[in-house]
This record gives sequence, structure tokens and C-alpha cells, in this order.
Amino acid sequence: MSGHLAVVGIGPGDARWLTPEAQTALDAADALYGYGPYLDRVPARPGQSRHPSDNREEMRRAADALTHAAQGARVAVVSGGDPGVFAMAAAICEAIEAGPPAWRALDVTIVPGISAMLAVAACAGAPLGHDFCALSLSDNLKSWDIIERRLDAAADAGFVIAFYNPVSRARPWQLASAFERLRRHLPGATPVIFGRAVGRAEEAVTVTTLDVADATNADMATLVIVGSRATRVIARPGRPLVYTPRAATEASA
Amino acid sequence: MSGHLAVVGIGPGDARWLTPEAQTALDAADALYGYGPYLDRVPARPGQSRHPSDNREEMRRAADALTHAAQGARVAVVSGGDPGVFAMAAAICEAIEAGPPAWRALDVTIVPGISAMLAVAACAGAPLGHDFCALSLSDNLKSWDIIERRLDAAADAGFVIAFYNPVSRARPWQLASAFERLRRHLPGATPVIFGRAVGRAEEAVTVTTLDVADATNADMATLVIVGSRATRVIARPGRPLVYTPRAATEASA
Repeated sequence: MSGHLAVVGIGPGDARWLTPEAQTALDAADALYGYGPYLDRVPARPGQSRHPSDNREEMRRAADALTHAAQGARVAVVSGGDPGVFAMAAAICEAIEAGPPAWRALDVTIVPGISAMLAVAACAGAPLGHDFCALSLSDNLKSWDIIERRLDAAADAGFVIAFYNPVSRARPWQLASAFERLRRHLPGATPVIFGRAVGRAEEAVTVTTLDVADATNADMATLVIVGSRATRVIARPGRPLVYTPRAATEASA
Repeated sequence: MSGHLAVVGIGPGDARWLTPEAQTALDAADALYGYGPYLDRVPARPGQSRHPSDNREEMRRAADALTHAAQGARVAVVSGGDPGVFAMAAAICEAIEAGPPAWRALDVTIVPGISAMLAVAACAGAPLGHDFCALSLSDNLKSWDIIERRLDAAADAGFVIAFYNPVSRARPWQLASAFERLRRHLPGATPVIFGRAVGRAEEAVTVTTLDVADATNADMATLVIVGSRATRVIARPGRPLVYTPRAATEASA
């Protein structure tokens, strides 16, 4: 089996976060698959075919890419951020498990990338400086009950929370509902960060507090971080620094 | 105030995971501060001073770097992995909050990097493909009680768990105790990944199950990932693929 499939994380923003390994994998590919706007961030190269698809077509995209690789091609599946965090790597694994035995023999490489929560955290200070969790607010693939249980558990146990997929056109109410749920557990002064399109021209990072956090500030390109009881804000000229201290006390946990 | 301080994530391994932004920040610095082995991974450059320190001296290192930057220098604090995840960014913020007012006026940049859990996950498949948390097992800066409460909450609510700082010479028993605690919540067949020195010559990634996971397989250079009830293993030629499906059901949560 000569085919090869790489799932390549290109980071959340422009080329300054594209690792050399990701660049090499993109350069070496015969064919690129991915969500259209991610492919648009990869410069075209003669002789390399491009197969954009819609953002709700992960399983079709995974099967197409694996089929192509199994024919002997070098295929790269382009993923925003890190491919292992709410992105294409899990979809590729699901397709391999459900697919023909030949797909298990393929040479598969996952190329890590800067995930959105790391980029947003870096813009804000160090809000993920202590224990934290990453939670998708999409209830397309899990029930809202499970999400609420995880919100309760994470906030109560003192984890900072990074929300992926906070909102979409088809899911307008989930983020407001999550904020409301967290207000049962956390003080109103808990810092909340909205990081929109970080690393791109339209980047906007805002810092607010849980009591007034407005879910309508988020869109599909936004990553939201909600602090723990320990998270602090340092006022200074320009944007404040938000950070979670490395030490946890019983009072803050 | 002309000084500048960058906290630079160089990733967990060799140069293939060093982003262009991180390379630029290292090149531009007059002075590099950091834990000795991280500085050793940055090639020397004439005219650039180097200030290695021990791994338990984060606050001293942060204060020294800030003092140097406040004198007008361009200072880079070198961090393994991502500086915002159990690394130097939070220590710098703590020092700024506790330090002289001039430090708040400094131009501070955090440069994100590939965190160890992303690199280990990429080697193993997509174990972080669904909701997950990152938890430091060091009880130097928090009580073991808090850690146990977070283990209980995370496992019970269905988060995959990435352990940072699983063990050190001064903390030999914590990882075994954490495995024991998780066995109360999770089936024995739950996948466990040990990722040692990922991206470096001595890299070793092993996949086992919670019932037989042996904490003595981990050292200071190891990142451990414990799956959720939903995490799956795909047998195939060579190392299996470990992944957590994007969909969560009540049974798996």
C-alpha cells in the first residue's frame, strides 16, 4: 500500500502559526481536501488537486480522502487549528474503523497545529495557566443534557473552560444557555474572553465578566474562554492581562 | 518604556514544530531566559545573551526577565510546548501583578506553541477528538484533595484527561494514585497513552489500558492521556489508532 494520508493542522490564523512540519506535508501532497475556507488559506501549487467541501460534510470528506489515498496518492486533509481538537483527525479515525480493511494499512500521519484556545489564550495573557477543559457547545453530536452535566462538573471542580463551536446559524441559543448555567456555579466577576478570528485581519479579542457576558458577541469564528474562580485580571495600559495562577487554594477551587 | 518581553513556546520536540512566529521572536531577542534544557534547543546567536535556570525557579526567572526588559532590552522567555499551558506565561503574569507598576506598561507578547498533549495525541490518533481536560498532577502548588476532586469530576462527566507533570523525583506516587482513583469511575479497558519525549530522538509512545496502566512507565518527560468511556482503539499493522468519536451518547458519557 503506497498511499499516504496526512491530517494537517494549519493553526487558527495566518502563516506565522503554520509549523514547518505542516508546511512540508502541504508541499508534499498530490491532493488537498478540506473545508473550503481552510483550503483558501493554502497557496495553490501546480500539479496539486484541491477538493473543497462544506463544513457539515466531515464524514464524506474523510471517506473521499481515504479512498484517494488508498489509490496510491499522497493526500493531505487540511484542518484549521489542531486537527485533533474538534476537527478532522477523529473523523478520519471513525472512517478508518468503519471502512474497508485496506484503509487500516494506510500510512496515516496527524500533524499537530496551534489550536484556537492556545492562540486566544496567548492574546489574552495566560487564562489556561492552570487546569482547564475544552468543550464543544455543538449539540449536533451529543445531547444538551450531556453538555450541561459537563458544564456543572467543570465549573464546580475549578476548571477553566474553553468553548469550541459556541454558536452557529442553526444553533443560536446554546452559548447564552451555557453562560446561564455557569452563573449557578461561578461568581459574576469571573473573567470571560471572546476571541474572534484570532491571527487574521479581522481579529477581535474582548474581555468581560460572566455576569454581563453577551452570547451575541460570538459567531462561528469565535472561541470563548470562561475563567475559574481563581482567574484574575491585571489592569494596565491597553488590553488587560487575564491569567489563572499556577497555585490553587481550596478557596479558589 | 521601550523594553519588550516575549514568552515563546517552542513546542515539545524538534524544530519541525517551531512556528515562524516563535522563530522570529527568538531571532529578535537580545536575551533568552528559560529552563536550561529548553534553552539548549535554541541555537546560539552572537550578541544574544543566555540566562538558563533550574526548573523550580519560575518566579525568580520571571522577575529577572521582567527586570531586564524594563531596562529597555528585547527579552524572550523560552518555554517548552505552549507557554500558556502549565508553563511560563502564568508565572510572568503573576510577577507582573505583584511587581512594580512599570512592569504593567511593558510590551508583553505571548507566542503560542504546540502543547505536549497535542503532539502526543497526534502520534496516537485522535484521543482528544471530543471534550477533554488538561490537569497537572503536581501537588506542589495545589493540594492532592483538589486533584482528586478534579479527577472524579472529569472522569464522571466523560472528559478525556491529559496529565501534565505526571511524576518527578520528588513526586513518585501521584500518577499511580490518579490511575487508582480513575478506576473507580472508568472501565478497565479504557485506553491509556504514555507519550514520552515526543518529537525528540528518544520518543516513545505506548498504548495500554487503565486496568494494567503502570505509572512507573512515566517520567518527567512523559505526557499521559486517559480516555473516556467513549475512547476507542483501532487495531492495525504497527501502532494502533486511539480516538474519541465526535458523537457522545448517554451510554458513553
